[in-house]
Amino acid sequence: MGEELMNRSNKQVILNNYVKGSVNESDMSVRTSTISLKIPEGQDGAVLVKNLYLSCDPYMLNRMKKVEGHYVDSFTPGSPITGYGVSKVLDSSHPNFKKDDLIWGFTGWEEYSLIKDPSQLFKIQETNVPLSYYTGLLGMPGMTAYAGFFELCSPKKGETVYVSAASGAVGQLVGQLAKLSGCYVVGSAGSNDKVDLLKNKFGFDDAFNYKEEQDYNVALKRYFPDGIDIYFENVGGKMLEAVLNNMRLHGRIAACGMISQYSLEQPEGVHNLLNLITKRIRMEGFIVFDYYHLYPKFLEMVLPHINQGKITYVEDVAQGLESAPTALVGLFSGRNVGKQVVVVARE
Amino acid sequence: MGEELMNRSNKQVILNNYVKGSVNESDMSVRTSTISLKIPEGQDGAVLVKNLYLSCDPYMLNRMKKVEGHYVDSFTPGSPITGYGVSKVLDSSHPNFKKDDLIWGFTGWEEYSLIKDPSQLFKIQETNVPLSYYTGLLGMPGMTAYAGFFELCSPKKGETVYVSAASGAVGQLVGQLAKLSGCYVVGSAGSNDKVDLLKNKFGFDDAFNYKEEQDYNVALKRYFPDGIDIYFENVGGKMLEAVLNNMRLHGRIAACGMISQYSLEQPEGVHNLLNLITKRIRMEGFIVFDYYHLYPKFLEMVLPHINQGKITYVEDVAQGLESAPTALVGLFSGRNVGKQVVVVARE
Repeated sequence: MGEELMNRSNKQVILNNYVKGSVNESDMSVRTSTISLKIPEGQDGAVLVKNLYLSCDPYMLNRMKKVEGHYVDSFTPGSPITGYGVSKVLDSSHPNFKKDDLIWGFTGWEEYSLIKDPSQLFKIQETNVPLSYYTGLLGMPGMTAYAGFFELCSPKKGETVYVSAASGAVGQLVGQLAKLSGCYVVGSAGSNDKVDLLKNKFGFDDAFNYKEEQDYNVALKRYFPDGIDIYFENVGGKMLEAVLNNMRLHGRIAACGMISQYSLEQPEGVHNLLNLITKRIRMEGFIVFDYYHLYPKFLEMVLPHINQGKITYVEDVAQGLESAPTALVGLFSGRNVGKQVVVVARE
Repeated sequence: MGEELMNRSNKQVILNNYVKGSVNESDMSVRTSTISLKIPEGQDGAVLVKNLYLSCDPYMLNRMKKVEGHYVDSFTPGSPITGYGVSKVLDSSHPNFKKDDLIWGFTGWEEYSLIKDPSQLFKIQETNVPLSYYTGLLGMPGMTAYAGFFELCSPKKGETVYVSAASGAVGQLVGQLAKLSGCYVVGSAGSNDKVDLLKNKFGFDDAFNYKEEQDYNVALKRYFPDGIDIYFENVGGKMLEAVLNNMRLHGRIAACGMISQYSLEQPEGVHNLLNLITKRIRMEGFIVFDYYHLYPKFLEMVLPHINQGKITYVEDVAQGLESAPTALVGLFSGRNVGKQVVVVARE
């Protein structure tokens, strides 16, 4: 163990201050710290990792705000942002992990991280896929799509499914799972390129660019003349309101995210919740944390489909930790095409 | 069969025109028509009834409006209002019903009704209770409370339950079912007399007058310092918004009605639906129609409790068909104390 391991420089993305409303690149800064690449004495049960890929996810904006009672804690201003990533173990004092293991789970937005509680980390077994998939298709967003669609929506063959933010990390898989389940699926996204992806790459039956629609009610009526059985909710606000008007009897809404609302100081009001009653709709919010026990079952289902080319996945890859703030901010204007990943190091 | 049966006068409550916004007594009128008390030739499968008790229910306001795609059709201007009631069969050409049977179900707001499709009528077997209970405790509102609470809310002993419009036809039973299930239950109502009823007659653990609260958030925090597990939603709007802020993780909301919204031209917006996600809340609307197969099971549970005095029920009884418009309008200002019934005839 050479002296050079003891004081390696460690680039980090820092949250400057709590964010109000929308996030800007100036809310973050990149600084260089130092880190020992050996787990400190007395620190049992920790792992020290080199971060390879970091995941940009919409929920992170809520962690940048000072919110109490949220399902995950707010970030700490002055400290590195944390989030999902793929990492390589450099040193471990935890019995489940050893040097050179590849893992995915919560890590820091930095080159190297000391993870004191690795109980929520997953060891990567299948490496015959792009490792970055473990930030998306095979990671938290993939599990989110799987759990939300199958556990909450109980899809039946022939049902109609609408997915908003459909080209995003979660949406693109929801659409493909819906097709594999024999459903009719329509997605919306924020550019014609994304709409093209939905139809021609992910096999959605139809798709539309919500930015080109004057009235979401009219748009949904066009794509679902007989109504929507299942809505996979990623955006909230006015879109949710239009969906409620277009739901069918006994419809199901899995509320996964409300990205259109995160940047607003005052979220939009939804005025037509009476539809929940008249149409007997079940609307359920969920967090993937509650479903990780299904992860082995998920892999068992999804890996063969990936290997057979029946499930595909599009990533928007930003190069280098310095690009992470821009990549994260871009989520909220829809600049990313597909799952937004940051490459910190290839290995 | 005397000639006098052929042309009996029949007082009726007529909807004058579709209602916009709130309902007034002038939206209805009482007129006298005539009816034959014998089922017309060729009208197979019908029953002709004398109406005894009529039920005033909040959902009826929605039927007075011109709404398409609602779960029940709008009323027809110029025709009698219809609704739940208790009736006595005078003549029947339906195999399930015979003269002198007592029934409950959909009938007309009139002295006598020819019911062409009696398939949704229930024959009353147990008459050792006030017959008017079949408009409330033992009828549609009772089944609503039972189905909503047990089928949608899955109550567990020790959980906290909040019921709005708690002294109404449905709410008073929900509270008592919650107590029988070992829950901690708090109700809200619109007068101190009603609050007194909730605490001293129905056995709610606590209750408050929402009209005396400046801020529903503060009120709910006072009664539920650790949050609400189950909300039985009868009012909607600002109250729902405050409840969402005060729900616990994995809370359940049974959306039964939104009476505070029915009189508004533009319903209030609910701005904090993100709580559904962060707290993994399931919010489900329901209509009692879907649960009538449970009616025998419901009676089996609730009748012994009534006979043992463990479940009580308060009715607000208006005398005479002429009083029906005033009684119905009163629901929306909360003038009724307990279930609003109209007596048309005692037998």
